[in-house]
Amino acid sequence: MGDNKSTTACQPLSLTNVNTLLDSVECFLFDCDGVIWKGDTLIDGVPQTLEMLRSKGKKLVFVTNNSTKSRKQYAHKFQSLGIQVTEEEIFSSSFAAAMYLKVNEFPPEKKVYVIGGEGILEELKLAGFTGLGGPEDAKKTVQLKANTLFEHDKSVGAVVVGLDPYLNYYKLQYGTICIRENPGCIFIATNRDATGNMTDLQEWPGAGCMVAAVCGSTQKEPIVVGKPSTFLMDFLQKQYKIPTDKMCMVGDRLDTDILFGQNAGCKTLLVLSGVTSKSTLQDPSNHIQPDIYTNQISDIFDLLNS
Amino acid sequence: MGDNKSTTACQPLSLTNVNTLLDSVECFLFDCDGVIWKGDTLIDGVPQTLEMLRSKGKKLVFVTNNSTKSRKQYAHKFQSLGIQVTEEEIFSSSFAAAMYLKVNEFPPEKKVYVIGGEGILEELKLAGFTGLGGPEDAKKTVQLKANTLFEHDKSVGAVVVGLDPYLNYYKLQYGTICIRENPGCIFIATNRDATGNMTDLQEWPGAGCMVAAVCGSTQKEPIVVGKPSTFLMDFLQKQYKIPTDKMCMVGDRLDTDILFGQNAGCKTLLVLSGVTSKSTLQDPSNHIQPDIYTNQISDIFDLLNS
Repeated sequence: MGDNKSTTACQPLSLTNVNTLLDSVECFLFDCDGVIWKGDTLIDGVPQTLEMLRSKGKKLVFVTNNSTKSRKQYAHKFQSLGIQVTEEEIFSSSFAAAMYLKVNEFPPEKKVYVIGGEGILEELKLAGFTGLGGPEDAKKTVQLKANTLFEHDKSVGAVVVGLDPYLNYYKLQYGTICIRENPGCIFIATNRDATGNMTDLQEWPGAGCMVAAVCGSTQKEPIVVGKPSTFLMDFLQKQYKIPTDKMCMVGDRLDTDILFGQNAGCKTLLVLSGVTSKSTLQDPSNHIQPDIYTNQISDIFDLLNS
Repeated sequence: MGDNKSTTACQPLSLTNVNTLLDSVECFLFDCDGVIWKGDTLIDGVPQTLEMLRSKGKKLVFVTNNSTKSRKQYAHKFQSLGIQVTEEEIFSSSFAAAMYLKVNEFPPEKKVYVIGGEGILEELKLAGFTGLGGPEDAKKTVQLKANTLFEHDKSVGAVVVGLDPYLNYYKLQYGTICIRENPGCIFIATNRDATGNMTDLQEWPGAGCMVAAVCGSTQKEPIVVGKPSTFLMDFLQKQYKIPTDKMCMVGDRLDTDILFGQNAGCKTLLVLSGVTSKSTLQDPSNHIQPDIYTNQISDIFDLLNS
């Protein structure tokens, strides 16, 4: 007899289970990078698949750990790729960071230092908070000379770290010194993805890289607000009022998307169009098994039209 | 009764134990940053203390986790501060990285990618290896555009990560892609110090920050060659042929210097002239207790001349 893990291994999406899936699910939660697009290129068959799901009355929600854009910027990206998605349908980790502060009554007179992109600063602003850092510190350098005093704003009460392709020593010192020296300063990570498809052809270091750097210098662990943390699920549920067992999380990453879905009690569908290969999924060292897997989301469309 | 920890707590250096210490120790191992100097400023009373120890026939060795300089560059730094120290008395983590490759018969036709300073590249060259990266990649940037292919050298067989105040996304992607994609590529950390006194007035993120970043993106753990790893102790012992219980490790950091000394079987002396305060030492959460502690190394000189 095989072990329990192999007998509970996930099934490929098929003619048999695709109808059961659609019958039992009211809301599909999609990850974006590796599911909807890779970099700025739409994955084949995405528009007709989303359109078909909407035509069947399914709610569609997009839950992305990529914090470089705000919800508004994501809505623009969808539009530019020919897909109609509203801001309210988008739950990004940039939005999650701002909402975490709001829900936890972060004092608006305090400031937030950002190691990350414009998206985080925009969401902070929309939520009524003052952000510092981010893109404006991209070209800052430090002078490691005797008697150099690195000045920082003592009113920073939170440091938010996300994906930052413009990471530098200035930002690392700024974030570190706030967390180490400002009393009560909290450390928030948008997410901890090790890598991501920042371009179509390759993976690049993800927010997990920048977050780990700040963990390394502060020796503190962050509060994670993106997937697999289910922090965003509360917002999602308030808005859609659908039980989580009527939801299906669709993603390309086992340790964020599929784990998030499972943590929240959703059905889970892994697509192999992003960072996870079939061999990784089936490797004995992998202990995260989605309910179903398939190559790409357009397989749903193809199966239903075959 | 108190618990075991408090009864075995370390003693302050005193008139009583300073003579016992000097009688029982043949070789003093000194950390540099926070013990000999802070940034480029010599700590008070260092030259006369070292001179006195030499005059009493003690061997002096300098074991530093700071990898930004080579042994040769360290010897120059000592000279510029008015202290005569030879290259052979210096054991830096830059030297340790090169020696690790040599001892493990790293193929000389393979290359080594460096996230760190000139010191590592210089030691690699002296050991007969070809280094890439380091300072020459300090100003490199990446283009995250569709169809951008980040090229890397497939013959890189090791990535060495140390303190790098010029850390950027290019270097992070280069090191990450080598570790992830080049078969058998090893990941070496010079050390994992969270912070260091890069300037006199403040602590800054240390090599532990850069190393953690690469752990975050590769999801691999490095081979650490600097303190508290005792890798360097073999070289030290070959050269000096002194049993480790006749050695005393003098440092300012509990989790590197004191732990290194203890791991190697040396006596240990903590100085409070660097990153560790007396309250940190005596905090119940600290489980690393040196044999003796004092404010700065010149206390040895002062006590013997009082």
